[in-house]
Amino acid sequence: MAGTMRTIKMEIEYDGTGFSGWQRQSGALTTVQGAIEAALGRITQEKIGIIGAGRTDKGVHARGQVASFTTGSPMPLGRLIHSCNSLLPDTIRITAMRQAPESFHARFSATSRGYRYFLLERPSAIDSRFAGCSYGKPDVAAMNRLAAMLPGTRDFAAFSKEDSDQQSTICTVTEARWCRSGRYHVFRIKANRFLRSMVRFLVAGMIEAGMGRLEEEEFVGMLESCRRLPNLKPADAAGLFLWKVGYD
Amino acid sequence: MAGTMRTIKMEIEYDGTGFSGWQRQSGALTTVQGAIEAALGRITQEKIGIIGAGRTDKGVHARGQVASFTTGSPMPLGRLIHSCNSLLPDTIRITAMRQAPESFHARFSATSRGYRYFLLERPSAIDSRFAGCSYGKPDVAAMNRLAAMLPGTRDFAAFSKEDSDQQSTICTVTEARWCRSGRYHVFRIKANRFLRSMVRFLVAGMIEAGMGRLEEEEFVGMLESCRRLPNLKPADAAGLFLWKVGYD
Repeated sequence: MAGTMRTIKMEIEYDGTGFSGWQRQSGALTTVQGAIEAALGRITQEKIGIIGAGRTDKGVHARGQVASFTTGSPMPLGRLIHSCNSLLPDTIRITAMRQAPESFHARFSATSRGYRYFLLERPSAIDSRFAGCSYGKPDVAAMNRLAAMLPGTRDFAAFSKEDSDQQSTICTVTEARWCRSGRYHVFRIKANRFLRSMVRFLVAGMIEAGMGRLEEEEFVGMLESCRRLPNLKPADAAGLFLWKVGYD
Repeated sequence: MAGTMRTIKMEIEYDGTGFSGWQRQSGALTTVQGAIEAALGRITQEKIGIIGAGRTDKGVHARGQVASFTTGSPMPLGRLIHSCNSLLPDTIRITAMRQAPESFHARFSATSRGYRYFLLERPSAIDSRFAGCSYGKPDVAAMNRLAAMLPGTRDFAAFSKEDSDQQSTICTVTEARWCRSGRYHVFRIKANRFLRSMVRFLVAGMIEAGMGRLEEEEFVGMLESCRRLPNLKPADAAGLFLWKVGYD
């Protein structure tokens, strides 16, 4: 009964606060992938599996997540977006859908991912939903000296949670810097790929150094030895956004 | 047992999303005033009543609410802020406390209030928590023509909810304009006082005009006749912030 199969590329924005991350899980946990698959399934009456470009952790947000799926439904994409958004919670919005070549795969076709981390110097009733906090004024110049060491192709094993799915811990970082934007310090990082919790571990290390609680040499030591200092915890997920996914 | 009474002026920031407005209410409703009074009462072991400069509606936020109270507690103010914030939900933060003259009254001593309304052209999973939405591109020049008519001393009865506490509907507006800030259209308005829901009715009228659904003459007609067109609903509370309260 289904027409020709189409491959659809979609862009998604979400407030990750209330979700147990991107990835569908069995049981009662609410995930972004699970919510979108349920909405698409209800509209198309097919069993839809979507592939996300980045598997964001619990509490991490996205401005520009990209996902792909195939469907036999002939529904015009404008109507599909509209129907999907009306079924989804307000904290997830599909912002675009377009037809892609059959070979398109949101994860494998992606050539770069950009993340941004928003940091406040003190907690805020309003801004803390979408920011981490340093509880004091960090030395941003010191943080930027460490950020400047990240670009290049290197082993980031020290800045990653163990992940059985992970075949390699080598990433090529092409941009990493802190800048000021209004009341936030913003860390921008771009790479071909990221390891599990990698941005949050890097940010945590730079904040600790910026607050004078970690020597710059200790940060460099982790990077070179591929071993994380045991007391380094990942920075608060609330500050992290998957910002943009690049395709050739 | 209590020491000398002190009058304290405090500044408060809150995310109004989960609160039934500023004003304490009987029953199970959670209000910002009620939450702060409960925290102060627990710390000082006194029955504390606080006076807010602006009684924000359900769902309205504040960056710079001001409130005053008197206490016999000799606790240093830095410690009082810290204790209070540790008891309050994360969506309310006391940002400053200082001792004020005995005659200080957060509401009656205030000489100006500034509000800001944040408007998006389309809904966002992230930004809609703190913004209203026009669902399309409004004519900002038209909105600014109407905004330019507001400054001065006039009767704003047309742009107000009935309020039995209200003795007069005359307000002196000293600033009213729309400007662009990133992805938002921002309306700034400053006046000596505001009527109940006044900013949200004014914003709703300007958005309707900006979207071509209300003639500019109809807006002017409401202002001059002091009668609101019956189909004008107040703009979404999520976009409104009590921004700053001025004292001489």
